[in-house]
Amino acid sequence: METILRGPSNEVTIGPDLPTVIIGERINPTGRKVFSAELQAGNLERVGRDAQAQADAGAMVLDVNVGAAGVDEVALLPRAVQIVQDTIDLPVCIDSPNPDALAAALKVAKGRVLVNSVNGETEKLKAVLPLVAEYGAAVIALCMDDHGIPETPEARLAVAENILKQAQAHGIAADSILFDPLTLAVGADHRAGVTACETTRLIRAKLGCNLTAGASNASHGMPERELLNTVLLTLLIQAGVNAPISNPLVNGLAVRAVDLMLGRDEWGMSYIQTYRAKAAREAAKG
Amino acid sequence: METILRGPSNEVTIGPDLPTVIIGERINPTGRKVFSAELQAGNLERVGRDAQAQADAGAMVLDVNVGAAGVDEVALLPRAVQIVQDTIDLPVCIDSPNPDALAAALKVAKGRVLVNSVNGETEKLKAVLPLVAEYGAAVIALCMDDHGIPETPEARLAVAENILKQAQAHGIAADSILFDPLTLAVGADHRAGVTACETTRLIRAKLGCNLTAGASNASHGMPERELLNTVLLTLLIQAGVNAPISNPLVNGLAVRAVDLMLGRDEWGMSYIQTYRAKAAREAAKG
Repeated sequence: METILRGPSNEVTIGPDLPTVIIGERINPTGRKVFSAELQAGNLERVGRDAQAQADAGAMVLDVNVGAAGVDEVALLPRAVQIVQDTIDLPVCIDSPNPDALAAALKVAKGRVLVNSVNGETEKLKAVLPLVAEYGAAVIALCMDDHGIPETPEARLAVAENILKQAQAHGIAADSILFDPLTLAVGADHRAGVTACETTRLIRAKLGCNLTAGASNASHGMPERELLNTVLLTLLIQAGVNAPISNPLVNGLAVRAVDLMLGRDEWGMSYIQTYRAKAAREAAKG
Repeated sequence: METILRGPSNEVTIGPDLPTVIIGERINPTGRKVFSAELQAGNLERVGRDAQAQADAGAMVLDVNVGAAGVDEVALLPRAVQIVQDTIDLPVCIDSPNPDALAAALKVAKGRVLVNSVNGETEKLKAVLPLVAEYGAAVIALCMDDHGIPETPEARLAVAENILKQAQAHGIAADSILFDPLTLAVGADHRAGVTACETTRLIRAKLGCNLTAGASNASHGMPERELLNTVLLTLLIQAGVNAPISNPLVNGLAVRAVDLMLGRDEWGMSYIQTYRAKAAREAAKG
């Protein structure tokens, strides 16, 4: 099953055994004080720079989130999306808990957008699925619902099955959904990594859908987080995640290393190219 | 199936879902000019230091190889083994292509030894299996034979099956063999990582045996080899390798990271302990 996203003129295909697609997560004020302050002042200068830097580091889809405290996302999200797509010809992943902001961004975005996100909560399904259907978009679906995040892979699969059924009732096909198995902190639950990987395998086997995942939650509170993130990304991609949400400036080369070791990168062309871009970045920093 | 190795008084168990056992590879002159020269002069001072350093970094079995050009391994290998076991209470993995050197080392080693290695070559089987049987040792078996290294996982499994049959004819049980799927360079064959992992899965599924592997060959000629080795180690351990041969001073924390993400390290105790030992080492270096 292949999921196709589009930028102004560029097309990205997500599918099993294809090279892994990195959704660049950097345009997001969470944990970024300066960027938050800029957004609060309506200053979007950093958005274009972050888009360019992530594209140079190998991102093939760009997540756009402007959700800092006090920001009017309905006004700002579409502006940020326009800046991203004026800078770089890539599909965007519009990221907001506010359905009005999603609607405003969908109106201006070019190509086929990825919506971040829906989940199995009744209200969320009602608010987001009609928008996804109206704009012919794709959507990220988190494996949680009104009862929270299920503990077992089987229960997360059941949530995914329900979301798929609801989506199909809106005319949204299975190939338009990227499921997120959800990765919790291994420091709190030592089976968290296994549960995410097993959920991924179940969804891939039973629903055939493509998957996204963030790998950085799992290492929360642990030392050497980059190493842990590399290991978990490797396990998740091996299990079937093919469009992780990640910071390509940090994890881009690791994703290409996984593809190389999984036989998806003949002659190591993508790996070496990404290595050279990283080395050039580091040389430029001095 | 569990493989048990023993040091002078210590016991190490290798088995599915148990914590991954690192076989420390550092006591080996390959690529080490100073150590080679010392061995040629009969100087074994470094052997005890390397044993201690690897044990501190998390090795649970210590490979001992003294095969520098011009060295009399029959005389030197048993001496090196004694130094290792006088320094550290761990099982040894005696490593030589010379059956007489293996025999001499088996005579002096305490506990239950791992022999490195046999393979499917007729002469090799004839020379090594009787020694393994005589001393009740365990043995590493490489998936290659008189025809070289087979290309496909299925053909490597066939070699493993033949080795197992020959071993059993000598009274050596399946739980006394650690198969090595063999990892070639991805730069020469972009499927090399996949072939090693698939061979691992097949041997685990069909023979139930435990497995070792070296992960560093695969990255030959590529930049950022440590990242590639981490990724391949992750994939190999996930596939079923449970006693990789590795340098714990470089890859020890990565192996513990894999166990943590595979749910084999409650509270991350081993991971954090290994991290602290590594941080202390780096602080001591200044």
